[in-house]
Amino acid sequence: MFEIINVKTSLRIEMVDVTEKIERQISKSGIENGICYITVPHTTAAITINENADPSVKFDIISGLTILAPAGADYTHLEGNSDSHIKTSIIGSTLTLIIDSRKMALGTWQSVYFYEFDGPRNRNLYIKVVKD
Amino acid sequence: MFEIINVKTSLRIEMVDVTEKIERQISKSGIENGICYITVPHTTAAITINENADPSVKFDIISGLTILAPAGADYTHLEGNSDSHIKTSIIGSTLTLIIDSRKMALGTWQSVYFYEFDGPRNRNLYIKVVKD
Amino acid sequence: MFEIINVKTSLRIEMVDVTEKIERQISKSGIENGICYITVPHTTAAITINENADPSVKFDIISGLTILAPAGADYTHLEGNSDSHIKTSIIGSTLTLIIDSRKMALGTWQSVYFYEFDGPRNRNLYIKVVKD
Repeated sequence: MFEIINVKTSLRIEMVDVTEKIERQISKSGIENGICYITVPHTTAAITINENADPSVKFDIISGLTILAPAGADYTHLEGNSDSHIKTSIIGSTLTLIIDSRKMALGTWQSVYFYEFDGPRNRNLYIKVVKD
Repeated sequence: MFEIINVKTSLRIEMVDVTEKIERQISKSGIENGICYITVPHTTAAITINENADPSVKFDIISGLTILAPAGADYTHLEGNSDSHIKTSIIGSTLTLIIDSRKMALGTWQSVYFYEFDGPRNRNLYIKVVKD
Repeated sequence: MFEIINVKTSLRIEMVDVTEKIERQISKSGIENGICYITVPHTTAAITINENADPSVKFDIISGLTILAPAGADYTHLEGNSDSHIKTSIIGSTLTLIIDSRKMALGTWQSVYFYEFDGPRNRNLYIKVVKD
């Protein structure tokens, strides 16, 4: 099963929890054990796993990444969003998740986050769910 | 085959070679060709591949990551381990490895490392091994 | 299908577009829907997806990564390429891509890049293509 799902972002830089959107696809597929493959088809947005408990963690991750690749730095790319491309390479555009007993095999405090680095925009996620 | 294996860490920040632990699971599965999927179910620990030959490489990687996300920086998260969450997002929580002829397809100098960023702790790895 | 393909790099630090090389393997396999697994079997080179439209993006990503892990920093590893190992851990050594309708499911502006961090060298990529 290959699906494209929509993610609407509302800030230039933002972490959006997409765990439920992905769980819905897994549930829809009816697959009990397998793998969920995700690709972000954009070059200024990324995907990874991090903590869902305390919102201040999201704030600190975004601050930390902004220090690593500042928005106003002296870049050559004329669109002015090179910081977004650098952050995308650092975080990564794909994620591969284990499905066990109809759910993603994640830890208690983990959620899957879509990292918007050049929003706000209407974004997509490519999702493929495969049975063992 | 889905298994949870234990990794005991002994420092706050540390790279632990888990190549043999993973090879043992692959060997136990009896799979000749396939894929090994790994998830770190924690939000302050990560997994990736790097050099196993000279221990000074590990030292330099840890120093380098500590400069990128310093432990004492001015974070908002009250647990005081935001640097660990940032490092986790940079390195990544999942790894997907090719199994060829009953072994992980790795280069000569490569090992799989569990990156502890907020230890020492008792940690887990989720491993799924799938036949082609 | 498991194959090793060659990537020749010409600079110390460089992003080489390997999209066509990978597409050729997928095409050769005849697989319509499935997954393409890639591993870089080196500890000073990495792989990820980024923009293929404006060459200045590549220039800015390389500059940005060089600031994060400078080549001349005070490292302990005597080979003098610790910056390359750090960059490799940041970007990552593996990539898992969805194959849909005989092609990689990528966005319009995306290409797969081999990140050389200690070249010029003759490098390899391990590629496995699996049918659903």
